[in-house]
Amino acid sequence: MNTTTVKAYGTPSADQDLNQMNIERREPTTKDIEIEIMYCGVCHSDLHTARNDWGFTTYPAVPGHEIVGKVTRVGSEVTKLKVGDYAAVGCLVGSCGTCSNCQKDLEQYCQNGWVGTYNSEDKYLGGMTYGGYSQKVVVEEHFVLKVPANLDLAATAPLLCAGITTWSPLRHWNVGKGTKVAVVGLGGLGHMAIKLAKGLGAEVTLFSRTPNKTQDAKDLGADSVIISTDEDQMNSVAGKFDVIIDTVPYVHDVNPYIATLSTSGTLVLVGYLGGLEPVLNTVPMIMGRKSVAASLIGGIAETQEMLDFCGKHNIVSDIEIIKMQDINNAYERMLKSDVKYRFVIDMSSLQ
Amino acid sequence: MNTTTVKAYGTPSADQDLNQMNIERREPTTKDIEIEIMYCGVCHSDLHTARNDWGFTTYPAVPGHEIVGKVTRVGSEVTKLKVGDYAAVGCLVGSCGTCSNCQKDLEQYCQNGWVGTYNSEDKYLGGMTYGGYSQKVVVEEHFVLKVPANLDLAATAPLLCAGITTWSPLRHWNVGKGTKVAVVGLGGLGHMAIKLAKGLGAEVTLFSRTPNKTQDAKDLGADSVIISTDEDQMNSVAGKFDVIIDTVPYVHDVNPYIATLSTSGTLVLVGYLGGLEPVLNTVPMIMGRKSVAASLIGGIAETQEMLDFCGKHNIVSDIEIIKMQDINNAYERMLKSDVKYRFVIDMSSLQ
Repeated sequence: MNTTTVKAYGTPSADQDLNQMNIERREPTTKDIEIEIMYCGVCHSDLHTARNDWGFTTYPAVPGHEIVGKVTRVGSEVTKLKVGDYAAVGCLVGSCGTCSNCQKDLEQYCQNGWVGTYNSEDKYLGGMTYGGYSQKVVVEEHFVLKVPANLDLAATAPLLCAGITTWSPLRHWNVGKGTKVAVVGLGGLGHMAIKLAKGLGAEVTLFSRTPNKTQDAKDLGADSVIISTDEDQMNSVAGKFDVIIDTVPYVHDVNPYIATLSTSGTLVLVGYLGGLEPVLNTVPMIMGRKSVAASLIGGIAETQEMLDFCGKHNIVSDIEIIKMQDINNAYERMLKSDVKYRFVIDMSSLQ
Repeated sequence: MNTTTVKAYGTPSADQDLNQMNIERREPTTKDIEIEIMYCGVCHSDLHTARNDWGFTTYPAVPGHEIVGKVTRVGSEVTKLKVGDYAAVGCLVGSCGTCSNCQKDLEQYCQNGWVGTYNSEDKYLGGMTYGGYSQKVVVEEHFVLKVPANLDLAATAPLLCAGITTWSPLRHWNVGKGTKVAVVGLGGLGHMAIKLAKGLGAEVTLFSRTPNKTQDAKDLGADSVIISTDEDQMNSVAGKFDVIIDTVPYVHDVNPYIATLSTSGTLVLVGYLGGLEPVLNTVPMIMGRKSVAASLIGGIAETQEMLDFCGKHNIVSDIEIIKMQDINNAYERMLKSDVKYRFVIDMSSLQ
């Protein structure tokens, strides 16, 4: 298969910084779209993959799955976009297309294994897929999204992961006018959860461990902030929330939040992978028909729905733009939660 | 308040057998129905309450909340039933009637605390409510159910707890034609879950630890049985079930069952009160948008709906009839799961 060499930023091992490297991109097939990447958001998964925190990274690794750019070439069968259009790519660049989940637009739960934008098997070139920390990417038309014309392109990039990851559970659990939603954690995911839930018409509360974030949360649209370490404040919202979006990415006690769910309410974990410790107590759950659920990104149709919704409601991410060369420093700052709320790489810095 | 003295079976302390005693029943108010109890099912909660296993029993305790009998008196405002009609009472004999849950026919989640048929505060006579191990009971009309004419009265009694406890989650999680349901545990609740899910048109599988119960489960209507200790059998149903009704009343590992849920599937705990150990792993949950939920009995309208459904589909419990005097021995046999599947007391033995 013919390829084009493009510049990228990646790492050859878990203990080395990201640096400039060259990678190959396939010549677009009849069904492919080639995109010149303009902006790429920086997700915590990028860092975890670069450093092999989950133990399944194959090197070299080129992260990045919050991609916005301009179409430079299209295959002969492509109808969704044309050269010169703005385009976006999220966490998925492939799935089987035939299993019952793919048939229901749930590619993120493909029963034959979806193809991640990075660190997945590349069925075209062999080896692994390389992500958006690069000049160009070639993606099957089905997995390319259209970008609403009115949105700031850089601030749109994080919608492709942080946005859809919170949008999908808000929609699946029927959040809308009259729904009371709480968000646990105010980072990349949490700040999008507030904006999107608010956009859907819900009453939105942020749970925070410290009062520092109160004004920030309200600026983002939150109706109120509950300090989770303050027992009186927690008691004041007992039984209140229909849906809680829990974005915390590390092990934490969810039992105090269960107490704040309404009858038939659901707490949805979108950030934490692992065992629920301290153990989940079923007593408060049974006494109010409560659920604990988990949700992964979203399907392609749903991602387009979210982008269109953001276009209509003028919702984008709050970002800090960096150069590609600043990525290692940005990772260190992310580890200290020192970003409001997402780094986005200006990919022109890689030219 | 005027009262009538009736015979009952109860215990004065956690470490004594149940024995005959006298209790008082109030004169029916204008809104009350007086029922001569013909049959009372024996629930595990009866035993736990008698022996103070949950630590909140007030003595003397008279258990029993699966009550079927005949109306002997009605208050002047009662319209639901008349003298001579068959009537049933389940786990609830009161709730506030005004909170948002009561207004939505969810009396079992009454925000001001529902009144249990036994071991709850008796707002009429003071002291605690006494259950169905007795000759008569006086209950507010709202909490009295009608019994379909075609059903065997003794075998109807367990529907009032074991029936509604499994019916409510089956209905809430939309079980019907085309749904794949699994049931964990084949006791009083489990055997009703099989019958009701089957009646609703679902494909039903029983999870059992041993092959002994295979034929029994099929006789009850299960389409298949999976031996949960057999890894190959468990793998054969990976990702299969839309809803799992987990009736196991003691701590157990739910993670192997999570693996058998389909995308967006829900495991509902109806038997176990306590911490989920070993800890719940969120990874398989996030990879399939799976939920763990818990559910408590059901509301009054829903209980009537269940009874009417059972009447239409000729569904009752499989029972073994005992005399009131055999209750202590029945408790011992229940602890060894030596009953198919519910003891029902013939209350004429107490005359």
